[in-house]
Formats: sequence, structure tokens, C-alpha cells
Amino acid sequence: MTDQSPPRPAVRPRGYAKGAARRAQLLAVAVEVLGRVGYRSATMLQVAEAGGISRAGLLHHFPTKESLLEAVLADRDEADRRRSTAGKPGLAALAGLVEVMARNTTIPAVVNLFAVLSAEAGDPGHPAHAYFVARYARSRAGLEQSLTVVADQGLLRPGAEPAALAVELVALMDGLQVQWLLAPELVDMPGLLRARLESLLTVPLPSRTTTV
Amino acid sequence: MTDQSPPRPAVRPRGYAKGAARRAQLLAVAVEVLGRVGYRSATMLQVAEAGGISRAGLLHHFPTKESLLEAVLADRDEADRRRSTAGKPGLAALAGLVEVMARNTTIPAVVNLFAVLSAEAGDPGHPAHAYFVARYARSRAGLEQSLTVVADQGLLRPGAEPAALAVELVALMDGLQVQWLLAPELVDMPGLLRARLESLLTVPLPSRTTTV
Repeated sequence: MTDQSPPRPAVRPRGYAKGAARRAQLLAVAVEVLGRVGYRSATMLQVAEAGGISRAGLLHHFPTKESLLEAVLADRDEADRRRSTAGKPGLAALAGLVEVMARNTTIPAVVNLFAVLSAEAGDPGHPAHAYFVARYARSRAGLEQSLTVVADQGLLRPGAEPAALAVELVALMDGLQVQWLLAPELVDMPGLLRARLESLLTVPLPSRTTTV
Repeated sequence: MTDQSPPRPAVRPRGYAKGAARRAQLLAVAVEVLGRVGYRSATMLQVAEAGGISRAGLLHHFPTKESLLEAVLADRDEADRRRSTAGKPGLAALAGLVEVMARNTTIPAVVNLFAVLSAEAGDPGHPAHAYFVARYARSRAGLEQSLTVVADQGLLRPGAEPAALAVELVALMDGLQVQWLLAPELVDMPGLLRARLESLLTVPLPSRTTTV
């Protein structure tokens, strides 16, 4: 899953599926614990206890807290990539962002973890600093590309500038998540993002039929 | 400064000014340490060491980490209030937000602290949860009021809805701060906020002459 993972044998050993399931379960537990406690103050013992495993058992899967963090981030990226395989830049990709926000309302632990981590990572000494610098650069570049395609199709309102809008829309999504965590009943994340996107477009945003 | 502070004597004792200066200096140090390390994992010893004082000396000013956090938050609110005394809701108040963002580019430690704290506080068990729920409600209400005044003056573009826009603009400011911390040379916080505000208005945003 990461570049650091050891090469897998061509024929997988018997225990492989079980080990992979265990690993996935531990990652889900780690997202919950790191999101609740914060990466910096979370301990491997807390994650192990929440996962019903010994600390040594956890260290077998993830030898350090950094490696656990890397695996959580790589897992999220992998999930994002799977969901956006249809992800040609353009109008449908913009609609996909609304779906990401809708899906996020069902996974508050993950939203919380990413909100805390991305803020903590503002410190250049944070182990996820480089990861988040690169992740945001990718997000902005992807959005700028979609907005440029839409502009070339004549679907973007005059005066809208793709590069600046990309920063603005990424910021809007981040900020909505912080407010939604504090007041979920007041903040309609997908609705507000859709409204902002449609205010930029000369056509309504399509509803994608793909599942999220 | 908070409701918990002891009543002050009518005639202040000799050491008062010195004590107040020391307290202010410790608060500045606390902002830096909590912003860098996160509230949850920061220790009183770390703050004391960064402030060049013993742990006992720090505890004299702030008996617990919670009380230190409360003082930092109250201090920020007080500073915000002082800057916005002219703060009648309306166009000038909207222009004032751009100035807040401009000022924030000069205080990354404070911006970092508030980004981390507001994200951590999404957890209802966090000691600053109630504070941030109330703070965001206030921010949204203030913005909605300003946008309503501007709408009543006929200066808001048709279709713009004050309540929804208040959520959007608060989110935009929060999200810009996260991205700016990660890529300060790429993210023009005041410029992007100004552009978004002006896209909502039928008049240019005034430049206030008050210092920030």
C-alpha cells in the first residue's frame, strides 16, 4: 500500500486474507482513535486496546506510530482513488466533490482525523507535513483542471478564474468540515458546496449515478 | 478576563503591572507551544520551559492546562473585540474580515493554534468544544447580520442568501488558514476572501483606514 511495504509473494500464504482483514480492522480503529485523541497525543497502546489486541500484536502490523499514520493516509488515498476511477476532469468531477461531501457526513471519525491532521501538519516538523503539502497541491491541481475544462466548454461564468477558485473551493470544503463537526445539524456540507459550485456555472451540476 | 478570575482590588498592588506583563508574556508563549505541539499533547512543563519559568511558577499563574487554554481563548476574544469596536454590522464589517485575514498572515502561531484547536474541538469531549460551538455560532450570526444589512441597502447580488453565505464565508476563512499554513507563498488569504466578497456585492469593498 505504501512504497515501504515488503514485496508480496506471488502465491499468497494461507493466513494472508485473515492478516489483511485484521490490518484493515486495525486501520479503522486507528482512524477513530487518532481522530478522537489527535495524532500527537495518541499512543500505540490506546490504538491496541481499542482494537482488542496487545501492543506487541499491533507493532507486528505497524512497527511505529509514524508507520501507522502513513498506512492510514495511504489507505484513505487508495479509497479516494477507487471512488474516482471515472475521474476525468470536468463537470462530472465537480459533481463528484458534492458526493464526497455527502459521503463524509457518514464518516465523522475520518473527517475529524483529517481536520486535526491537516491543521497539525501546518507545523513543518509534523510527520505528515510533506504528505499534506503534496495532497493539497494535488487537490488544487485537479480542481483547477476541472474548472479549466468547464471554462473551455463555456460553462463557467465570466470572471471566474480556475486557479484562484481551486484554492477557494478546497478551503470551503475544509472549513465546512470543521463547522459540521461542531454543529452537524446546522451545516449542510453537500448542499452548501453544490450551491457555491452552481453559482459559478451556467448549467446545473449533474447528479452522478455512480455510488460513492 | 474570564468569569473565573478573582475580583481585582480597587487599588492595585505595586507588583500588579509586572505580574500582568508576565502573564501576557506567558500567554504568548502558550499560543506558540500549543499551536506547535497541539493542546492535547502539550504539557505545562513544555510551556514553562519555553517561557523561561519553573513549572511551579507557571502553575501560580495558571493552575491547570484547562485554565491556560481558557486564558488563551479569552485573550484572543478580547483582542478581537478591541479591534472591532467600530464593528457595526454592514459593509465596513465585511471589509474588516479581509483585514483580519491580512493580520493573520503576521501571526502564524496563533492561526496554527486556532486551526488545530477548532478541529480537535469537533470531539464533544474536548475542553474547548463548547467554546468553539459558541464562537462559530457568534461568527455566523455576525456575518449573517452584516450581509442582511448589505442586502437591505441593495448592495448584495440577487440570489445571495445571508444565512447560507455566513456559513460559507466562515468556512472559507478557516480553510484558507489551513492551506496558508501549508503553503504560505501560494495562498493569498486576504486577496481570495476579498475576491469572494466582491463577487457577492454590487459595489467594491471599502478599504478601512483603521489600523489592524
